Amino acid sequence: MSAPSRLKELRDQIDPINLQILELLNKRATIAREIGQVLQQVGTRFYDPQREAEMLTALQMANEGPFSNEAINKIFSEIFHATLNLEERDARQTILVQRKQPDQHTIIEFRNGLRLGNDSFEIIAGPCAVESYEQMDRVGAVLAERGVKMIRGMGYKPRTSPYDFQGMGEEGLKIARQVANKYGLAVISEVLDMSLIPMMDEYVDAFWVGARNMQNSFLLRALGKQSKPVLLKRGFGATLKEFIYAAEYIMASGNQQVILMERGIRTFSEWTRNTLDISAVPLLKQETHLPIIVDISHSAGRRDIANPLGRVARVSGADGLMVEVHPNPDVAMSDAKQQLNLEQFNQLMDDIESVSDRYQQPAE
Amino acid sequence: MSAPSRLKELRDQIDPINLQILELLNKRATIAREIGQVLQQVGTRFYDPQREAEMLTALQMANEGPFSNEAINKIFSEIFHATLNLEERDARQTILVQRKQPDQHTIIEFRNGLRLGNDSFEIIAGPCAVESYEQMDRVGAVLAERGVKMIRGMGYKPRTSPYDFQGMGEEGLKIARQVANKYGLAVISEVLDMSLIPMMDEYVDAFWVGARNMQNSFLLRALGKQSKPVLLKRGFGATLKEFIYAAEYIMASGNQQVILMERGIRTFSEWTRNTLDISAVPLLKQETHLPIIVDISHSAGRRDIANPLGRVARVSGADGLMVEVHPNPDVAMSDAKQQLNLEQFNQLMDDIESVSDRYQQPAE
Amino acid sequence: MSAPSRLKELRDQIDPINLQILELLNKRATIAREIGQVLQQVGTRFYDPQREAEMLTALQMANEGPFSNEAINKIFSEIFHATLNLEERDARQTILVQRKQPDQHTIIEFRNGLRLGNDSFEIIAGPCAVESYEQMDRVGAVLAERGVKMIRGMGYKPRTSPYDFQGMGEEGLKIARQVANKYGLAVISEVLDMSLIPMMDEYVDAFWVGARNMQNSFLLRALGKQSKPVLLKRGFGATLKEFIYAAEYIMASGNQQVILMERGIRTFSEWTRNTLDISAVPLLKQETHLPIIVDISHSAGRRDIANPLGRVARVSGADGLMVEVHPNPDVAMSDAKQQLNLEQFNQLMDDIESVSDRYQQPAE
Amino acid sequence: MSAPSRLKELRDQIDPINLQILELLNKRATIAREIGQVLQQVGTRFYDPQREAEMLTALQMANEGPFSNEAINKIFSEIFHATLNLEERDARQTILVQRKQPDQHTIIEFRNGLRLGNDSFEIIAGPCAVESYEQMDRVGAVLAERGVKMIRGMGYKPRTSPYDFQGMGEEGLKIARQVANKYGLAVISEVLDMSLIPMMDEYVDAFWVGARNMQNSFLLRALGKQSKPVLLKRGFGATLKEFIYAAEYIMASGNQQVILMERGIRTFSEWTRNTLDISAVPLLKQETHLPIIVDISHSAGRRDIANPLGRVARVSGADGLMVEVHPNPDVAMSDAKQQLNLEQFNQLMDDIESVSDRYQQPAE
Repeated sequence: MSAPSRLKELRDQIDPINLQILELLNKRATIAREIGQVLQQVGTRFYDPQREAEMLTALQMANEGPFSNEAINKIFSEIFHATLNLEERDARQTILVQRKQPDQHTIIEFRNGLRLGNDSFEIIAGPCAVESYEQMDRVGAVLAERGVKMIRGMGYKPRTSPYDFQGMGEEGLKIARQVANKYGLAVISEVLDMSLIPMMDEYVDAFWVGARNMQNSFLLRALGKQSKPVLLKRGFGATLKEFIYAAEYIMASGNQQVILMERGIRTFSEWTRNTLDISAVPLLKQETHLPIIVDISHSAGRRDIANPLGRVARVSGADGLMVEVHPNPDVAMSDAKQQLNLEQFNQLMDDIESVSDRYQQPAE
Repeated sequence: MSAPSRLKELRDQIDPINLQILELLNKRATIAREIGQVLQQVGTRFYDPQREAEMLTALQMANEGPFSNEAINKIFSEIFHATLNLEERDARQTILVQRKQPDQHTIIEFRNGLRLGNDSFEIIAGPCAVESYEQMDRVGAVLAERGVKMIRGMGYKPRTSPYDFQGMGEEGLKIARQVANKYGLAVISEVLDMSLIPMMDEYVDAFWVGARNMQNSFLLRALGKQSKPVLLKRGFGATLKEFIYAAEYIMASGNQQVILMERGIRTFSEWTRNTLDISAVPLLKQETHLPIIVDISHSAGRRDIANPLGRVARVSGADGLMVEVHPNPDVAMSDAKQQLNLEQFNQLMDDIESVSDRYQQPAE
Repeated sequence: MSAPSRLKELRDQIDPINLQILELLNKRATIAREIGQVLQQVGTRFYDPQREAEMLTALQMANEGPFSNEAINKIFSEIFHATLNLEERDARQTILVQRKQPDQHTIIEFRNGLRLGNDSFEIIAGPCAVESYEQMDRVGAVLAERGVKMIRGMGYKPRTSPYDFQGMGEEGLKIARQVANKYGLAVISEVLDMSLIPMMDEYVDAFWVGARNMQNSFLLRALGKQSKPVLLKRGFGATLKEFIYAAEYIMASGNQQVILMERGIRTFSEWTRNTLDISAVPLLKQETHLPIIVDISHSAGRRDIANPLGRVARVSGADGLMVEVHPNPDVAMSDAKQQLNLEQFNQLMDDIESVSDRYQQPAE
Repeated sequence: MSAPSRLKELRDQIDPINLQILELLNKRATIAREIGQVLQQVGTRFYDPQREAEMLTALQMANEGPFSNEAINKIFSEIFHATLNLEERDARQTILVQRKQPDQHTIIEFRNGLRLGNDSFEIIAGPCAVESYEQMDRVGAVLAERGVKMIRGMGYKPRTSPYDFQGMGEEGLKIARQVANKYGLAVISEVLDMSLIPMMDEYVDAFWVGARNMQNSFLLRALGKQSKPVLLKRGFGATLKEFIYAAEYIMASGNQQVILMERGIRTFSEWTRNTLDISAVPLLKQETHLPIIVDISHSAGRRDIANPLGRVARVSGADGLMVEVHPNPDVAMSDAKQQLNLEQFNQLMDDIESVSDRYQQPAE
């Protein structure tokens, strides 16, 4: 028999076995659930390592292969875990962040009319950090002129060294709010610790979780209890699975308005600060129903390739891009090398529009 | 003139030029150093590729040979590199974490007599998470028997998914404290958010900052105001420079008792969970005066190479190692694949002692 | 004085010192060159490690800092190296691969009218490996219909395991040539060893150097002596600098027709086979004058995101893209998961054209 | 019924279900194993995410609970994973490089008495490249004095740039042979292309395949037809699986005398040239029966941590280490920063012996 035919024959044998295993697993789960109920009645903890160890021993003694005892251990440990979490998981069916139907899209709306996750392609821009009213005002004016609807209003900057400029704090947020109000912009601002949320809530339209905090579960859960949208940046060392589950922390706590941001990962490549993982955009679009933004500033760490990266983001399937803009980047307090000046920002917008005037996001 | 004579004549012309170049290089370095100090004041990074590019362009335009522009580029790149090193060394001289003299070593002492950073090689061990009194008691008994003085007492577990087991919380800490008291052990426990510090302070002898929180500056600063030691794990995507500066956040806030832990970095390599960066140990020893611990569990993510990694840690210059031990790893709530059972732990200890009975840390 | 003013003042002091060093270096080089001529007359090797060691010792004894002796050693070692290579380098001025003027573009022409490096965006397509005449014929017909002008005609496949399918060899090349002739296509094919060049030269229009051979200097130099174009793939572990210098090996040996291909680098990211480094495209465009092609198949290793990656490549500034197409990918002998079927290929072409009909490459 | 009785009753129902699941799992594994054999015949990879996705979809559609689809996904993913391991283990059982019994060890003997793969720990040392007779003679004398039995005799150097020093060629090999004969050393030398093998065979005792050539299948196969041992370096971007299969290319062509060398992989880490992957040593020891050498020079790219890395290599389970030694590293033609001078080499040997005099390789 030819290899492909034999392959098909064998695979056809696998499928019914899968279903038999499925049936037994659910039969087992039904009984285990009742065990759980009994245990709860008598006030005992459901988790009983001794009982699990006995079951594993019995299975290992009965195991005749070809699976090794180690393999059997691993599979049954997974079954035990799943059983343990059954009640909790019943309620969810599957994780919230996951796209359930092809046309499921979370659209996030702001008071000033900005909509993310829509068919449009939106720009988030502004300086790395708020440094002065004048600085923000000059940027705000240009953003408004170009139809941009969200400004970075960063009062707190996470820095590698404790001696580097850490932001103007609440003073910076006030400035950002003033300028945003003047030009009809929404303000987004990074929150470094959950203790800052109440104060920041007075100034911002959306919270920003930086790469260093992507897995700060206390912060994520606290933001999950807020009513304002949360933009979550991928950690530079985070897999996409970890990224998705970090978003799940927020959503599982009650806040469904989550925006994902791809910002480059850490690799051996030397000519950019990070390596923009553009493939992450279509993959995240497939897996989740959340808006995706591409950060073209921190990924490259250099402004001279902002235009091609802007065009790339435009057609990648993303819902927008984020770019750092500063009236005078050379004297910026942080990230001097990657911020665009106002003229460069206008050129970037022209370049993106040379694509976007004509290009419509695909339905995929 | 004969060739040898001419050769000598020419060589005699080279020597004073060498010295003139030397003089100019050092004159240049003196000015560059002052530039570095100004940059440090305003919190900017020293490395400025744009400025370097401008200088190279100026040099190339002025270059009339015989050196090619490429040769001039290479020589001046080396000069820039040396200058950068000089500025960075200057900057680091001012940071607290930096070793100032070869024999500067921070030694951290605990109430139960444990000393880290000493000439001895210490073991930190225990289960991934506290699951029950019985579990901790069985581990504690074995640790005490082998002369181990610090137990993991993890009440809070950071997990990728919000639906995974997140630890027993304060109840777990109580158990850890009880068991530690029974066997004369110190307890170390991971702190996930600064809000937990006051409660945890009642149970633990040292705080543990996980890889996901390595750059959580609010947590680091809060721990910098505590009187108990802090163990700081390297983030799986963090450079050594970032790691050192994270420690600096703690020390700059007042707590000098910081322990560093190397735990593997994220790479393309597939057969281990992370890649243990063993070179980090001697490098951190050179750069800092802090105790270094090697985590042989999370770096590998598999228990079958625990023994060789234990031996490797022993002679690497590290002050100790950390290993996960569980009475029955197959039914552990987390990290099942990498925890040793009690017998395997005893074998590991034997193996380390086969090296350590005879080997003395070098003075370097 | 303000920090920015002081910075400018100090930098203004650096510039003339740079020029003084430059002058001394060239004065030194002129003398060294004469020394080289004298040494050549007396038949002595130019390289004299003992003399260099003596000069370094003299410099170290004279060095009063702030540069360390180690830094001085490194800088002078670079000067010695540059001096040693002076004659050779004089002839070149700078490396051949480097773009000298903004409008310098290498355009590579093929007999069938295909031009790479032009303003157009070209597609290279075909199956991973030649498997049969029918397979190639079906692909060739579709390519011709869509205006594609170059087909993959892979007779030799580099594989991880020696037991995997290694290609049909010369037989495959014959098929590729036949099909190409039938449809007016150019054939490109991977050359695994320089010994294969003469035979392959009878069938192919361009040579392809795979990622595993990017630094095979013997192969690169041998291809540098050919008259046909060479497509050079970036190694999955190679920096852009290494990539550029690999191209230089070919050009320095005489063949100026080199095409660069970005194909993804190896990172920790798990949901794609490699991480497409899209930023490499504008960076290579800035640094070199060579055509750049984006491989959207091997970078992702999965076909479901081919369309967004195709659009991304289209606007990245690249001169074309490469995609694997197979009449029936599920039964392909290699790379089954990433090859498009003919219908998917048509959809990809439609999608690229939805951008490219309207979008013109920028002048940058 | 009382809770304890009911509990017992329910648990008694679980046990036979466990056994039924076990039986089905092994039935499934038996079929999957045959699928693996068919796939191996046609040279396809076992891992087929698309097939897995289809099976998961079928299971989810059939799933009626109480297990959630997510739970079923996790359990079956574990089953797929175990199955994949089974298939891969089956496949590896057939490859030559795989260790079949715990005590299977390839021991490679040289004419001068050197034995690699034995219980001893051997040193391979010498300069990066042969530069002169005097240079080699000085190194050879020190090696012989310290009982080292193999010298690097590198006539050909692979370099990033075509304009860098590429080695003295055959003249360098002659010098290496002369010096080796004088001191009773074996010579190992890098072969850059298979065309060089016959000439080199006259001078060397073993061939060295560099990291850039690890997947040069023509070179590997040609060396597989030689009678002398081959040392194979891991590519800096290569997984351990690729490394093992590269060795298989040599062995499958007939030469069983293969030595593996771990030399560091490319990561984001900046303070070392590469990241020494020390975990690779015990993993390669488990998987293969070949001798393993640790390269402590190229992995670090800096000589100041040579001693701790030497000690680490000593106890890692490796059969030896490789270190670059040069009489005057500062003026070396290549790799100046990482070569030890003769005094440093003696210190390294002392340091290794401080461990190795007392430490015996474990039986594992």
